[in-house]
Amino acid sequence: MHRKVIIVGSGPAGHTAAIYAARANLEPMLFEGMMAGDVAPGGQLTTTTDVENFPGFPEGVMGSELTDKFREQSVRFGTEIVTETVTRVDLGTRPFKLWREGADDDKDEADTCDALIIATGATAMRLHIKGEDEYWQRGMSACAVCDGAAPIFRNKRLVVIGGGDSACEEATFLTKYASHVFIAVRRDVFRASSIMAKRAMNNPKITVLWKTHVIEAKGDGNVLTHVVLQDAETKQCRDLEVSGLFYAIGHTPNTAFLGSQIEADATGYLLVKPGSTVTNIPGVFAAGDVQDKRYRQAITAAGSGCMSALDAEKYLEDLAAEEQEKASKL
Amino acid sequence: MHRKVIIVGSGPAGHTAAIYAARANLEPMLFEGMMAGDVAPGGQLTTTTDVENFPGFPEGVMGSELTDKFREQSVRFGTEIVTETVTRVDLGTRPFKLWREGADDDKDEADTCDALIIATGATAMRLHIKGEDEYWQRGMSACAVCDGAAPIFRNKRLVVIGGGDSACEEATFLTKYASHVFIAVRRDVFRASSIMAKRAMNNPKITVLWKTHVIEAKGDGNVLTHVVLQDAETKQCRDLEVSGLFYAIGHTPNTAFLGSQIEADATGYLLVKPGSTVTNIPGVFAAGDVQDKRYRQAITAAGSGCMSALDAEKYLEDLAAEEQEKASKL
Repeated sequence: MHRKVIIVGSGPAGHTAAIYAARANLEPMLFEGMMAGDVAPGGQLTTTTDVENFPGFPEGVMGSELTDKFREQSVRFGTEIVTETVTRVDLGTRPFKLWREGADDDKDEADTCDALIIATGATAMRLHIKGEDEYWQRGMSACAVCDGAAPIFRNKRLVVIGGGDSACEEATFLTKYASHVFIAVRRDVFRASSIMAKRAMNNPKITVLWKTHVIEAKGDGNVLTHVVLQDAETKQCRDLEVSGLFYAIGHTPNTAFLGSQIEADATGYLLVKPGSTVTNIPGVFAAGDVQDKRYRQAITAAGSGCMSALDAEKYLEDLAAEEQEKASKL
Repeated sequence: MHRKVIIVGSGPAGHTAAIYAARANLEPMLFEGMMAGDVAPGGQLTTTTDVENFPGFPEGVMGSELTDKFREQSVRFGTEIVTETVTRVDLGTRPFKLWREGADDDKDEADTCDALIIATGATAMRLHIKGEDEYWQRGMSACAVCDGAAPIFRNKRLVVIGGGDSACEEATFLTKYASHVFIAVRRDVFRASSIMAKRAMNNPKITVLWKTHVIEAKGDGNVLTHVVLQDAETKQCRDLEVSGLFYAIGHTPNTAFLGSQIEADATGYLLVKPGSTVTNIPGVFAAGDVQDKRYRQAITAAGSGCMSALDAEKYLEDLAAEEQEKASKL
């Protein structure tokens, strides 16, 4: 199947790209994935409950409801959605080639496109401790900025897991709401930059728990009430009363299927020309969290999804004009 | 009145900044303006009717309804909204100072803030021809990308007014939907780059009307059906049957109140560090159309509004940490 534009990814970036591309009559095809990156179609939003910071929804909206709306809007304007995962691409020749999971290695089975938008997001890392399935989004989260302001965390004791800049930054952020914030660090030192570490350690509302593993989430059957801490050396365990647990142990951009065909930074995030979605390969664009490790919000992803469609459209127009010029010279 | 954060502007960028700043407990104040730039609070969206490309609204949403939702969401999280226009600022000293329209020159009347977000947008230029008030958004628009896909323009004859790159680009874009597109150019030559001009002139669905003024919009009382063209030299008039008129004569970023205190490009758009909202003045951030002449969509503005709040928040945290450090050394 050949398309002018193929979009890989189904979060706010992918669907906003699809809405714009479809309205521009580019008849895009969008791969929403089949539990790609262990996340349902719709991306990270499907792992949250109430989204309060997506503008346009003053009463808040459920993450899964919002992703359904995105999808419906893409379809309305003519996007073809494929519920399969792309596992391999060849960006070395035109048109670009994409293979679906389980595709035979026979090249004829590839989908092809003139412009490709990568919007596969990033997955917040989790430890999958005991009790996590039960209390996820009932006191457990991987995004302090998204969820920290929720009433269940206000004036409560919270624990952040992690030892890097994110952990320090998110713990500091959470002190705006929490009565007290603990940071559980596996080692006896922060991996964070000294300025971020110092800021956290100087904050009277933050206590650092060194050499501490969090090994279990406990609750009342409804919400989180305790975590079990284990000393990394003595292996001794104790309970810590908290109403919230935030993972801040990093994200993994979902780029494995690209091999190393697109320029990325050391942690795998795709590199774009700042202020655009243009990658090092002409005709390949990246939008959303897969190229953003700073802001990482649904609304910023949506904004860059729109940019990627407009960038792709301009690319295709330039391409058509070039071809017309070539043809007129023959 | 002193605030940590003041936001000037009330479109998608301003309100998204407010939602994020308010949720971060920064208690922002937002100036929505009193017909600032001749546009109602809410910005350019209030001059459109049905918005189909803002993700999250598969059925479309009225521009004014969407801006009401943004405003409600800002207020819900504690933004204080001031329905006055900022007419002057002093960014040369800390805290930054802002004066409201009609304020006495006495400096005590200034509002002050530690971080300032400029989100005042840009205003699409219009000619205000006869009939424009009657047929605005009933066949007349200043945004081909926003409105071109609307059913009333499909397979219809359309006219674009302008002689620059935008006019050529938007006319080319509209050929996706229109049966034919006219470009009315006042002179006998395009101001556009030669590649864009050539592309438009080579398009069989585009006819350029040289030395032509559009002086009147006529309709059936409900929608636009004709425009009156006047030859720039002979002054002779004739009717042209069209279902759509698109202004593509440029935008004016709303930056007059800033004097030239923030670095801007030759056309007045504020310059930011690409991929961020950081201006040349530490603590002053710019979001939305006031710093974007390429994408200019509601969703991209909202995305950059979010970025500006996160940038401002980080700035304020760094500032607080520095002050704490200074204090601890005394």
